[in-house]
Amino acid sequence: MNNLIVKNAAQVVTCSGFEGKRGREMSDLQVIKGGTVIVTGGIISHVLHPGEGIPVSERDYTLIDASGKALLPGFVDPHTHFVFGGYREEEFSWRMRGDSYMDIMNRGGGIVNTARATREATEEELIESGRQRLDAMMRLGITTVEGKSGYGLDRDTELKQLRVMRRLNETHPMDIIPTFMGAHAIPEEWKGKEDEFIDFNIREMFPLVAGEKLAEAVDIFCEKGVFSVEQSRRYLAAAREHGFLLKMHADEIVPMGGAELAAELRCLSADHLLQASDEGIRAMAEADVVATLLPLTAFSLREKYARGREMIDTDCMVVALATDLNPGSSFTASVPLLFAIACIYMQLSPEEAVTAFTINSAAAINRADYIGSIDVGKQGDLILLQFPSYKFLPYHVGMNIVETVIKRGEIVFSMC
Amino acid sequence: MNNLIVKNAAQVVTCSGFEGKRGREMSDLQVIKGGTVIVTGGIISHVLHPGEGIPVSERDYTLIDASGKALLPGFVDPHTHFVFGGYREEEFSWRMRGDSYMDIMNRGGGIVNTARATREATEEELIESGRQRLDAMMRLGITTVEGKSGYGLDRDTELKQLRVMRRLNETHPMDIIPTFMGAHAIPEEWKGKEDEFIDFNIREMFPLVAGEKLAEAVDIFCEKGVFSVEQSRRYLAAAREHGFLLKMHADEIVPMGGAELAAELRCLSADHLLQASDEGIRAMAEADVVATLLPLTAFSLREKYARGREMIDTDCMVVALATDLNPGSSFTASVPLLFAIACIYMQLSPEEAVTAFTINSAAAINRADYIGSIDVGKQGDLILLQFPSYKFLPYHVGMNIVETVIKRGEIVFSMC
Ligand SMILES: [Zn+2]
Ligand SMILES: [Zn+2]
Repeated sequence: MNNLIVKNAAQVVTCSGFEGKRGREMSDLQVIKGGTVIVTGGIISHVLHPGEGIPVSERDYTLIDASGKALLPGFVDPHTHFVFGGYREEEFSWRMRGDSYMDIMNRGGGIVNTARATREATEEELIESGRQRLDAMMRLGITTVEGKSGYGLDRDTELKQLRVMRRLNETHPMDIIPTFMGAHAIPEEWKGKEDEFIDFNIREMFPLVAGEKLAEAVDIFCEKGVFSVEQSRRYLAAAREHGFLLKMHADEIVPMGGAELAAELRCLSADHLLQASDEGIRAMAEADVVATLLPLTAFSLREKYARGREMIDTDCMVVALATDLNPGSSFTASVPLLFAIACIYMQLSPEEAVTAFTINSAAAINRADYIGSIDVGKQGDLILLQFPSYKFLPYHVGMNIVETVIKRGEIVFSMC
Repeated sequence: MNNLIVKNAAQVVTCSGFEGKRGREMSDLQVIKGGTVIVTGGIISHVLHPGEGIPVSERDYTLIDASGKALLPGFVDPHTHFVFGGYREEEFSWRMRGDSYMDIMNRGGGIVNTARATREATEEELIESGRQRLDAMMRLGITTVEGKSGYGLDRDTELKQLRVMRRLNETHPMDIIPTFMGAHAIPEEWKGKEDEFIDFNIREMFPLVAGEKLAEAVDIFCEKGVFSVEQSRRYLAAAREHGFLLKMHADEIVPMGGAELAAELRCLSADHLLQASDEGIRAMAEADVVATLLPLTAFSLREKYARGREMIDTDCMVVALATDLNPGSSFTASVPLLFAIACIYMQLSPEEAVTAFTINSAAAINRADYIGSIDVGKQGDLILLQFPSYKFLPYHVGMNIVETVIKRGEIVFSMC
């Protein structure tokens, strides 16, 4: 029935008040102490203050007593690469001991390694490993996840990755929002023919992906040595023609005007942004581009973190957080570590971090009207913490404190 | 019966070969691929290579098929403060936004806060919250934990903390090794009378704790503004008279010769060591003092990490890792984050990190003969990973990959 009453939560952390382009006041979570939330038919039907009576017939509902616990919207992870073949744990050791990128490439490491394994994997194998990763993410409180293709870099494997996500979306409680990222790297076969590879994506891939409705957005790795601003502009502009929303991996390693391009094209989001310029950040805010920050990747690569504090202090900037789960630079979906780094190393307050990983990250995948806050009419995606306050999310450093995960009013995980 | 066979593990990571004072080659884990481990009556009875027949009657044993999974000794956490009352999540937010230590103290924060809550808590309350923390640690693969008193700072509360650990040790599968840390801080009542407080511990507390056999070791916070080297020497020398092993919080914030003192007194371990001098490190290695590093605390406080790489490269130095779980500076027992920081930020190899959190950390609590490696005759404390190699411990950054926890041959946790 997906009818559920969560009663007397120490805190109902609503994250309410998102106003489209202007986002929301990130530091005010609109918490209801002792609140009760009712989900009817999978949709939030009532958000009650203490003392308000329960206006539904309780015996038609599953009941959860949430006293001593905080209730939040399910977390939304708006940037991952969670469908891939193979692992790169050996390469991690090499990288840690300081081996050069070229050394690692020569021994079969890097994205080539993942592309080979992803090409070789069957759809079933990718579904099985993808399912395990979704399970792990759900245990950490994530209820909606964006997933990118881009480990095939050829027609069939890119389509295979997207179809795997479609299948997983149908069979796993997690909602999966697929993004096509044909331009994730330049595959061996196209080395030196980058422009032609962009053409291939525009001419062959966009129509196929759009035709099968396999993705909502298109993404590109705009970076020195990967795809230039000019190539990114051409690729994204063509994607828009096919009706795709636009995303970018922008200004991660070298500052090259990625943020500015995202603003120019009015992308849905620009992600990474470690090297984004002041003008780029301001332009993004004005153009209503969500800034999605991926501090787990910076942590894993020993990079400096993006300037989250300054971005939040920029008028009308919508700042989101994401895990960037992938098998190379950052094999992690650790939500607790994400909160710890955001608060300890990027100077976000716990309130801002919660906003960034719920309603703002929903905005980063064009879902702010459906998920990301506890408001009547939104999907019943909720998580219950073991502790009475959201403040334990960064305070219990690196520890998973999610006790119960609720998806469309149904309990899909309980800590054993 | 506590009879168990773990069959055909992708890796049996034995961590074997510890040689007392000289420790072990930290980078050679002595892995058996496809190995089988048998626990009989709670004790490891056989460690078999592939092809060796099983020399016991299988029907008297629980069977685990470990193909595709790595088997390791249970993790040993040799430095925690896991018994305490209250939480300090508000203070965490204050600290993050840059409020000064004095501001926080004035609003009732700091160790005074925890001491008050610990004094007010009943033994039952401390047992209940302690039990929950032990459960969380066990899910992360920790099978033996050291726990310190030091949040009472008065006679009755210190004894209460130690008795809580005794009770938990009797009722929880986790093995708990208790340490008396009367000199953890200077309580309000003794401000300005630090020497007298040391005397109080020596004259009143040591005999009581020794008489009830409530602790194996005694610890002190040797730090500028807390207890001086002179006070530490007097306190620890007296503790030795009562038969206690000696431990120190040394050279954490200000370099003041803590490592040298630990060497002079031949302490069992000296912990933190962020500011330890070169001579201090060398002296510790010569005096057979285990160096216990607590990088989660450094991470939480934005401090520089201890020089783990250099310590390991110092002849005969036994380097261990610990979580330092406590409600103030580092409310975390995140084993995966510990591995990630050790490998990414302290330049330990995955092999060295595993050694540091198994057999070397067993040595830090005087248990290297009983736990910390997979050797015949040792306690059957084992963990099974979801992945085929220990290399996934740092590679799957911040993610708990422990699938099954075995304590004395009994399955005490399985990932659901
Ligand atoms: Zn990415
Ligand atoms: Zn400590």
